[in-house]
Amino acid sequence: MSIQIPQLPKGTRDFYPEAERIQNYIFDTWRKVAESFAYEEYEGPMFEHLELYTGKSGDEIVSQLYNFVDKGDRAIALRPEMTPTLARLVIQKARELKKPFKWFSMPRLFRYEKAQKGRLREFFQLNMDIIGTESIYAEADLMAAIATMLRKFGLKDGEFAIGVSSRKLLATYLEEIGAPNPALVYPVLDRRLKIGPEAFAKALTDAGLSDEQIQKLDAFMSCKSIEEVKAAVKSENASAALDEIVELFATLQSAGFGECVNLDLSIVRGLAYYTGIVFEVFDKGKSMRAIAGGGRYDSLTEKLGGDRIPGVGFGMGDVVLADLLREHNLLPSPKQSVDFYIASFTNDMKKVFETAQMFRASSSTAENGTNFTVSHPLAPMKMGKQLDQANYQGAKIVVYVDGDKAQAGEFEFKDLRDGTMHVGNADAIVKQLNS
Amino acid sequence: MSIQIPQLPKGTRDFYPEAERIQNYIFDTWRKVAESFAYEEYEGPMFEHLELYTGKSGDEIVSQLYNFVDKGDRAIALRPEMTPTLARLVIQKARELKKPFKWFSMPRLFRYEKAQKGRLREFFQLNMDIIGTESIYAEADLMAAIATMLRKFGLKDGEFAIGVSSRKLLATYLEEIGAPNPALVYPVLDRRLKIGPEAFAKALTDAGLSDEQIQKLDAFMSCKSIEEVKAAVKSENASAALDEIVELFATLQSAGFGECVNLDLSIVRGLAYYTGIVFEVFDKGKSMRAIAGGGRYDSLTEKLGGDRIPGVGFGMGDVVLADLLREHNLLPSPKQSVDFYIASFTNDMKKVFETAQMFRASSSTAENGTNFTVSHPLAPMKMGKQLDQANYQGAKIVVYVDGDKAQAGEFEFKDLRDGTMHVGNADAIVKQLNS
Repeated sequence: MSIQIPQLPKGTRDFYPEAERIQNYIFDTWRKVAESFAYEEYEGPMFEHLELYTGKSGDEIVSQLYNFVDKGDRAIALRPEMTPTLARLVIQKARELKKPFKWFSMPRLFRYEKAQKGRLREFFQLNMDIIGTESIYAEADLMAAIATMLRKFGLKDGEFAIGVSSRKLLATYLEEIGAPNPALVYPVLDRRLKIGPEAFAKALTDAGLSDEQIQKLDAFMSCKSIEEVKAAVKSENASAALDEIVELFATLQSAGFGECVNLDLSIVRGLAYYTGIVFEVFDKGKSMRAIAGGGRYDSLTEKLGGDRIPGVGFGMGDVVLADLLREHNLLPSPKQSVDFYIASFTNDMKKVFETAQMFRASSSTAENGTNFTVSHPLAPMKMGKQLDQANYQGAKIVVYVDGDKAQAGEFEFKDLRDGTMHVGNADAIVKQLNS
Repeated sequence: MSIQIPQLPKGTRDFYPEAERIQNYIFDTWRKVAESFAYEEYEGPMFEHLELYTGKSGDEIVSQLYNFVDKGDRAIALRPEMTPTLARLVIQKARELKKPFKWFSMPRLFRYEKAQKGRLREFFQLNMDIIGTESIYAEADLMAAIATMLRKFGLKDGEFAIGVSSRKLLATYLEEIGAPNPALVYPVLDRRLKIGPEAFAKALTDAGLSDEQIQKLDAFMSCKSIEEVKAAVKSENASAALDEIVELFATLQSAGFGECVNLDLSIVRGLAYYTGIVFEVFDKGKSMRAIAGGGRYDSLTEKLGGDRIPGVGFGMGDVVLADLLREHNLLPSPKQSVDFYIASFTNDMKKVFETAQMFRASSSTAENGTNFTVSHPLAPMKMGKQLDQANYQGAKIVVYVDGDKAQAGEFEFKDLRDGTMHVGNADAIVKQLNS
């Protein structure tokens, strides 16, 4: 009778309660900050028709899909990113939706790729997007939200940086130096720092660039200041793209985020649909994968068959973020805690259930939104075992339903945080909890 | 250029912000009540190895899987229910986990079946389970949580009922009347009220029962009181099963849930793994599908190759619940609302961003957990359009960053709820919000 129990699928995770508490801390913080910026939450199905991804995103993503044919003969894929779903939602209600609007989602995503540090086959990703405006203040809003979020997680300015680049600027520069096929060039540029200078030069040669063009491009991508870029580019389009970046930085500066952003032309982003500002967020020293990344995609809805509706957004994955927070010791305790443990010397289970329900009901009518957590034994057992359970569950106060020192309407109770014994009514017990 | 944009996959849903607000209301209420009963949240992967489902659950479920072979040649299935994942988690850490424990999860589930009212191919389901005790007080705890939850949603006692039956009792009765193969009988009994008396009798004949046995069984399943059942069954096992139900009802009665539960031997549940109490929750008059259903499964981990660890739990889907709440007019407003809209007569975007950030920061340091929602224009526009936007977003207060009646450190502001104009500092504005 030794049946082999099936294992957890490779590249996915089990979230036992201790792990799930950390996930919920991340999700709560994402949601709270997104809502404080007045982004509205949305969701979509976990899978889409395969066509929504094929040809629309970069090839890198398409080759990494979990795709299959369903029992109704439809070609289906588990969603590898949220933006195509977002674009579908926007196209479907293009006329009803009052633009601009700010939306966020925390989708679960799936990519069939080699599982490794910071990369899993199943992960969560905060997505925030602004649809319906070409204004650079949309980018400013997104970056202010990112910085606010990372600060809320406890990171200090200087421990992270939002690196900003511009596809528009890159496109202009590629045109200026006479590069033949920009669409072939972007994926190479995106891998520049990963593949090393030689492989980079070879890949660009394959994309049709001359040695001189490659040298210029490499120098351009190393520019560290607006002034350096200004000296390198000449066209009107380039200076418009630069002006945008200058205004973006000035706006973020005045909102208190000056130390959180910098120019980083080495950022390109792999996906084909970006058309303007692109950005990535890294920990100090870039020791990890990007914490977040995004950019402007003004022609995505058009490519998918809808009207042209401008958009800009980013994704922030849970895996790298949690690794970073763990490294900085910024994750909360994963331990269980309960407010009240209802115990009984005589195993009077009916009295136990009744009292537990009384405490739960009192919290549900409280105005300040308190939500008491109430536990108790689930079977008759000795008081010693009940106290063990209370301690194990992180109970703050043990309430005895049948302590003999208590009068009618009162209870004996023990504060496990300091070991003190008390006698009092329900109000006194709640007061002790909050003391 | 008229590319056909891919449609939403059949049987799945898009959640635009208005729909997502309703979802979040349901999820929040589920989570709050589960936590108030000291259940700990867990999660698992969205798909499992196919073997986890084949042969372990009833056949009905297996034929309705979204299953496929992944790029690494693994047979995979999107999860159709959470219990097999839960059993896997429990088996994996059978020794470390301190029993009994109470867990909940709100998984997204997938079943390839005909989409119809109350039934979708992709849905959410609250799961609450107690692992590691055979005590009937575990059932009492789960049912108290269900009743508390439905009351919290605004339903009154009498508008729903938890119908309780017992597989143990049924098994004893089947033995008493000499039914040859109980495993063949349960799926038929589960469909009793759906298929009508003739088809029911025929299916039982096919399962090997005589006319007399069928008549007895039908009468037994119609018993409405403990007394009626007592008169029908004789064995010691039967009376032990009945005593359990009596204690369950008495405990719930003393905790204030007497009107929420009743005996209903017509409930059988389709899944093969139940071993004791089974229950289903219906709206008054059973006009809809079950709101929730569950039962005791003391040998599931054993069947999956682990040690025998008793368990009991239920699932409550989002679709039927939302239909029911909608019918009772109990769903909250789905409209957006924001606390502050920061406006500027001179389109001073830097001042707008700075002020918005000031209000967000003030809420993040507030002790009572307030989380101000702050919006503002994303591009220069006339004041009239800014006010339109503020109204459309449900803003409560518009703050003017450059109103000329305000002194240094003060703002002009308008309360859109009553149309009043004010002048004051940030504290005065927050006070007005809470007035």
